[in-house]
Amino acid sequence: MPQLSLLDVELLAANSLAANGCDDANTAAVAATVTAAERDGSHSHGLFRLPGYLGSLRSGRVNGAAAPTVTKARPGTLIVDGDGGFAPLALATMTEPLAELARTQGIAMAGVRNIFHFAALWPEVEALAEQGLVALATTAALPYVASPGGTEALFGTNPIAFAWPRAGQVYAFDMATSAMARGDIMLAARDGNDVPIGSGVDADGNDTTDPSAILNCGVQLPIGGHKGAALALMVELMAASLIGERFSFEAEAEYGDDGGPPVGGEFVLAIDPAAAGSSGWANHAEQLFSRIEATEGARLAGARRHANRAHTTMVDVPQSLLDDIESLTT
Amino acid sequence: MPQLSLLDVELLAANSLAANGCDDANTAAVAATVTAAERDGSHSHGLFRLPGYLGSLRSGRVNGAAAPTVTKARPGTLIVDGDGGFAPLALATMTEPLAELARTQGIAMAGVRNIFHFAALWPEVEALAEQGLVALATTAALPYVASPGGTEALFGTNPIAFAWPRAGQVYAFDMATSAMARGDIMLAARDGNDVPIGSGVDADGNDTTDPSAILNCGVQLPIGGHKGAALALMVELMAASLIGERFSFEAEAEYGDDGGPPVGGEFVLAIDPAAAGSSGWANHAEQLFSRIEATEGARLAGARRHANRAHTTMVDVPQSLLDDIESLTT
Repeated sequence: MPQLSLLDVELLAANSLAANGCDDANTAAVAATVTAAERDGSHSHGLFRLPGYLGSLRSGRVNGAAAPTVTKARPGTLIVDGDGGFAPLALATMTEPLAELARTQGIAMAGVRNIFHFAALWPEVEALAEQGLVALATTAALPYVASPGGTEALFGTNPIAFAWPRAGQVYAFDMATSAMARGDIMLAARDGNDVPIGSGVDADGNDTTDPSAILNCGVQLPIGGHKGAALALMVELMAASLIGERFSFEAEAEYGDDGGPPVGGEFVLAIDPAAAGSSGWANHAEQLFSRIEATEGARLAGARRHANRAHTTMVDVPQSLLDDIESLTT
Repeated sequence: MPQLSLLDVELLAANSLAANGCDDANTAAVAATVTAAERDGSHSHGLFRLPGYLGSLRSGRVNGAAAPTVTKARPGTLIVDGDGGFAPLALATMTEPLAELARTQGIAMAGVRNIFHFAALWPEVEALAEQGLVALATTAALPYVASPGGTEALFGTNPIAFAWPRAGQVYAFDMATSAMARGDIMLAARDGNDVPIGSGVDADGNDTTDPSAILNCGVQLPIGGHKGAALALMVELMAASLIGERFSFEAEAEYGDDGGPPVGGEFVLAIDPAAAGSSGWANHAEQLFSRIEATEGARLAGARRHANRAHTTMVDVPQSLLDDIESLTT
């Protein structure tokens, strides 16, 4: 399988985005997001997504020259208008104003609207935690996951990402409220691998280990049955109703056949831990992290991502993916 | 089995609390919480908890005359000092100031410290949603649940409660991040019922359906494996480090043998949905609720609680429980 350096990954992404009408700012933001995913070993959010990004530029659904704006709605709330572009530039534009607001108010939120989100959520919460803030983010998607008790796809995989500032490497998790992330099921289907029972059901509502049967006419299942479905519903309410954006099922109605990201919004919360009552919060948290790290068999969320981050120099990229990207670049 | 009216439940609770040194304000707050749980069919948080409340008063661990105070730390953050009393009075004291702050700031949080929490969390989030706010609350407990990847009990059952304002009855869920709530496992043990595989493991780390084997020397399991453990860790960080309170494992060190609640804190978040960018948030959300309610087999979280609330007049109370309460009252 071909191998690319991280620099080549970034250049490949940037060249293909620019060739499809992305301006410099959007090209840089999306290419950085794709490259960071490859660097962290999150291949389902890396170059694997690039044909979708390119397709949605070529179809005209996404604004490659989007210029996001930030407005303060109340003393503690921001509204970010993504101008119909990809999420990365809107999120990069938001980080500093939201961090500043959280530091003065103690707590602040941003409703990011009119974006096309196709990436992991850890970059935006890590960026806030690297500024010393506790952060939480969530977004809807397209209807992939069963509604509570039923087999109708109503919710997105609706991830929840959370980050906590630590000296050195921040702690962050980023989890779908579905049993599996959509991208991981897609990778399993591409590579001919099974998925665990509980990931989803087929068109007849039967349990299956066949990722294609879930993706084609089946439906994904939430984590923990009713509990995961309740979390997914909370995400729809926070990342859609609350901020004036589309539910997953509404985004579907506007979705095309270009393989790109759906339109939608993102809810982002930031809290200054120094404003919440504890001066010793950082050292206190380390006592808990230490206990977990000392537990046999235990692993902090994000540990594998951070290990990859420290060591990745070259990444495997299937030739078929390189061919797809090339065909979408010229 | 004896039956009591809701009024008799409240009187029984109030009389026994007052007889053990609770002042009027704390007696009324705790008795209301116990009665609301019975009314809603949540028996594991009803009279079943009363011997614990009484025991922790008799041992002197809990301050029955606690006078909670509210301080503003930053423009958007409150610190609530529970004065070493039961949670209900601190939470009732907090609701109005937090709601007012959320309305002016758009978003606000309270760190509730120095409380003894032994109840469900839906009362506090429902109270905020009834004022038109989106609310989220979470609390740690005692170490009952395995740390990620291990079998060591490190986390509490660490519930997450969320409420959304609706005309008529608000939507609210209140879920342990463990596969089962502790109280439900305790009720199963009391009543000789099995619990589902995945609820916990026995002292040797083996799956079991025996609730007593989990409670005695075993450990509960989080929902969805690593995902539930990550959520439980987030709860510990938010409801302990962030607000200057104890982790579940730290609360254990101060726990006695009186069967009462552990000392700890609670994180409460409130958002004014009108401040987050959408004027049509309420009607928009109803479109999603309607789709769920129209789904065959689907059920909104809290629906059973609300149905019970509308119809409960008499509740079954085991004679042994009445005997326990009587023996702790005189």
